[in-house]
Amino acid sequence: MHVVAAVVADRLTSRPFDAAIIAVGSELLTPEKVDTNSLFVTEVLNDLGIAVAFKAIVGDHRAELTSHVAHALQRHRVLILTGGLGPTDDDLTREVVAGHLGLALREDPAIVEAMERRFASRGWKMPAVNRRQAMVPDGAVALANPHGTAPGLWIEHDGAVIALLPGPPREMKPMMEGDVRPRLAGLVGAQRLFRRLVRVSGKGESLVEEIVQPIYSRWLTAMPPIETTILAGLGQVELHLVLQSSDAPGAAVQLGRAVAELAEALGRDVVSTDGSGLEAVAGQLLRARGWRVALAESCTGGLATSRLTDVPGSSDYVERSVVAYSNQAKVELLGVPAALIEAHGAVSEPVAAAMAQGIRDRSGVDVGIGITGIAGPGGGSADKPVGTVCIAVAGAVTTVRTFRFPGGREMVKAMSANWAIDLLRRSLLED
Amino acid sequence: MHVVAAVVADRLTSRPFDAAIIAVGSELLTPEKVDTNSLFVTEVLNDLGIAVAFKAIVGDHRAELTSHVAHALQRHRVLILTGGLGPTDDDLTREVVAGHLGLALREDPAIVEAMERRFASRGWKMPAVNRRQAMVPDGAVALANPHGTAPGLWIEHDGAVIALLPGPPREMKPMMEGDVRPRLAGLVGAQRLFRRLVRVSGKGESLVEEIVQPIYSRWLTAMPPIETTILAGLGQVELHLVLQSSDAPGAAVQLGRAVAELAEALGRDVVSTDGSGLEAVAGQLLRARGWRVALAESCTGGLATSRLTDVPGSSDYVERSVVAYSNQAKVELLGVPAALIEAHGAVSEPVAAAMAQGIRDRSGVDVGIGITGIAGPGGGSADKPVGTVCIAVAGAVTTVRTFRFPGGREMVKAMSANWAIDLLRRSLLED
Repeated sequence: MHVVAAVVADRLTSRPFDAAIIAVGSELLTPEKVDTNSLFVTEVLNDLGIAVAFKAIVGDHRAELTSHVAHALQRHRVLILTGGLGPTDDDLTREVVAGHLGLALREDPAIVEAMERRFASRGWKMPAVNRRQAMVPDGAVALANPHGTAPGLWIEHDGAVIALLPGPPREMKPMMEGDVRPRLAGLVGAQRLFRRLVRVSGKGESLVEEIVQPIYSRWLTAMPPIETTILAGLGQVELHLVLQSSDAPGAAVQLGRAVAELAEALGRDVVSTDGSGLEAVAGQLLRARGWRVALAESCTGGLATSRLTDVPGSSDYVERSVVAYSNQAKVELLGVPAALIEAHGAVSEPVAAAMAQGIRDRSGVDVGIGITGIAGPGGGSADKPVGTVCIAVAGAVTTVRTFRFPGGREMVKAMSANWAIDLLRRSLLED
Repeated sequence: MHVVAAVVADRLTSRPFDAAIIAVGSELLTPEKVDTNSLFVTEVLNDLGIAVAFKAIVGDHRAELTSHVAHALQRHRVLILTGGLGPTDDDLTREVVAGHLGLALREDPAIVEAMERRFASRGWKMPAVNRRQAMVPDGAVALANPHGTAPGLWIEHDGAVIALLPGPPREMKPMMEGDVRPRLAGLVGAQRLFRRLVRVSGKGESLVEEIVQPIYSRWLTAMPPIETTILAGLGQVELHLVLQSSDAPGAAVQLGRAVAELAEALGRDVVSTDGSGLEAVAGQLLRARGWRVALAESCTGGLATSRLTDVPGSSDYVERSVVAYSNQAKVELLGVPAALIEAHGAVSEPVAAAMAQGIRDRSGVDVGIGITGIAGPGGGSADKPVGTVCIAVAGAVTTVRTFRFPGGREMVKAMSANWAIDLLRRSLLED
C-alpha cells in the first residue's frame, strides 16, 4: 500500500508540512469507542493538500500526552489535538501543550466573561472549575466556541502550527471548518489533493497488484506524481489514485489518463472508474436495458437481494426474490425438479441453474439469479466442503459457476452475494 | 468515563507492563476509514488486566513507522501491531520491527510450504511476492494463520513483548485470541477484568439511561466497583458492565446481582444478558418450540432474512422468505388481495398482516413475518413519509405495528429488520 505523501517543501526546516492528529480522552481507549473526530479533521486537511502522517489516541495522562506531543512536533509541522479542553482535572491538553512549548498560561478576562454570560443565559452561575478553560498560552489565539464552553486554541510556534479543539464533534467541526481551515489555507497556498477511485471485482488483491504495478509505478514518477493505494475488501479491490497539484484541470487530465490505462489493463474486471459501487453499476446496466431481475437465494439468505436494494430506486428493477433454504421451498417456489436435487444434490450447478431459470420464468423478468451453497459451519462434506457455492445467471442464456470461498459463515455469505451481483453485471455487459 | 488502568508492576524496568497498539496502513489515514482492530485487541488486553496507554495509526511509510515503534517501546512493555504483513512492497511492519530491534530476517521453509499448499488447494500457484510473508526475525515465534497467508509474529525482546498480527479482522482476531492471549496471560498475574453485556431492544438510549442510571450509579460505589458503559446502535442499546478483581467466583456473583437488577428494571426490552445477539435469541426461542418462520419482505429487500440467517444452523428454522417489492409479487407469491392493496396502499397495516399470514399459510410454518414500508429517498408522501414501515408477526394471532424511522435508506432498512426480528422475539415470549 502506498503512502499519500503530499509533502509541501519547507524552506526553513527539514520537517514536512504534513500533519499529526492526536485525540485525547481515556474513554477512547476502551474496547467500545473509536475516535471519529479525526475523520473530519483528515477530510479538511486533505482538501488543503495536507497529508496526515499519523493519528494517535492518548488517555488523560500527563506524561503520556506530553510524550506524544513532543514526538509529533519532532517530525511534523501541523498538529491537531481534539479533546481534553474540559473544566476538570482530567482535561490536560491545554496545560500539556503550553508546558511542552514553554509558554506561560494566563487567564483571558474576555473568555471568562463570555463563559459567565453563557451560563447566565441558562440561569446558572458558572462553576469555579470552568475558569481553567479561560487560560490561554502566551502568543496563542483563542478560537470562540459558540456550541460549548471550551474555546479552542491556535498556536504558531517555531515553524509549527498547533490547533487545540474541543472533543464533542458538534463543537469541534465548526471550529475546524471556520477557524482552522482558513488559517491553514493561508499557510499552504494553492496546492490541493485530487482523487479518483477505480473499483475492481473478480480478482484477488495480489493478482490485481501484479497487473497494475507496472502502470502505477510509471505514474508515480510522473510530474506531478500520482500515488496509488490498493485496498481489498470481500471480493472487491479498490485502487485509490491521488495527485497533488495547484492546477485543477491539469490534474483531471493526468488522473484521467492513468485511470484509462488501468481500466484497459483490467478489462471487464473494472466495475467503475467514478466510484460507483457494484450494486449501483449492475442496477444502471439493468435500467439502461429496461430489464428487471429476480433472485432465488439459498445460502446467502437474502443478502444478495438486500445489497442490490441498498441502491435508491432499485425497486424499479428488482422485481422479487425468494429465499428457499429447504428443498421443499426450492421445488414449490421455484419449480426445481425434486429429481434434479436428488441426482446432483441441492448444492450443484444444475440446481443453481434451475433456481435461476425458475425464478425468471415465474416472475416474468429478464434475468434470474440462483445461489445455492454451504455457508457453514455445518453441512460440508469432503466432496463439497463449507464455502462451496454455485451461482447461476439466467437470461437468454444461462451461465453457472462454482466457487470455493474461504472463511466463516458471514464471509461465505458476503463473497457469494458479491459474486452473484458481479456475475449479473458481467452477463449484462455480454448482452 | 473511568480509565481501565490495571498496571502490573515490573520488578526489572521502570516501564509499566501496559500496552501500545499500532495499526499500520495508509488506508487507515483517509477520511473514510477507522481502525477497529484495536477495539478487539483492547478487549483481550483489558481482560488480562493490561491497560492500553495509547493507540497510533501509521501509514505504510518506513521512517514514520520506525519512529512509532521506537516511541512505543521506550515507554511500554507490550506492543501489538496490526496490518502491514501482506506480500507487497508497501507491507513494512515485519521489516521495520526487525530492523528496529536489530534482528535478522530469515525465510522459514515451513511457512513457504504452508502458503504453497494453501494456494495449491485452490488450484493456484503462489505468486513469488508472497515469499516475503515467510520471513521471520531471529528469535521470533511465527503464529500460524489458518485464515490467510500472512503468519503473525511473537517477539520477546529486552523486557518487552511485541506481537505482529495481520490486518484483516477475521485473520487478526483468532490469532489475538488463540496465540497472543495465552502468551500474555503467562506474563501477567491474577487480576482480570470481568464483563457482562446486557442487550436491550425497543427503547432509545436516553430512556434506557434514565431507567438504569440509579442502578449502575449504586454499583459504581460498591467494592469492588462495577463500571457501566452504555452504547447505542441501530435500534439496540448495549450495557457493558466491567469489574476488576482477582477473585473470579466473587466477581461473577457481584456482576450477576447487578445484571439481575438491570434485567428486572428493563423487563421484556432485555434481549439477552449473556451477550447473545437479537437474531440468535429469536432463533433459540423458535428452536425451543420446534417452530419455523417464513418472511415476506418489501422495503427491507431481504435484510431481515439475511440477518436471521447469519446465525449458524438457522436453516433449521428459517423455512423460506420472499422479497415482494412489486404489488404483483405480493399478490402472486403471498396471496395478498389486490383489493386490499388498492384500499389501504401497499404500505399499510392490513397489507403487512396479509403478507405475514400469506407467507405463513403458503409455507406451512408456525410464524410468518410481513414487512412493508418506504425506505426512501423516493416514494414518501405527506401522509406516509419516508421511514414509514408496517411490520406484522402472524402466529396463532397476528400483531401489527407501524413505525416512523428517521435517517436514510440504509438506516430505515436496518431499523426495520431489527424491529421485525424483535417483534418476532416478543411474540415468542408471549406464547
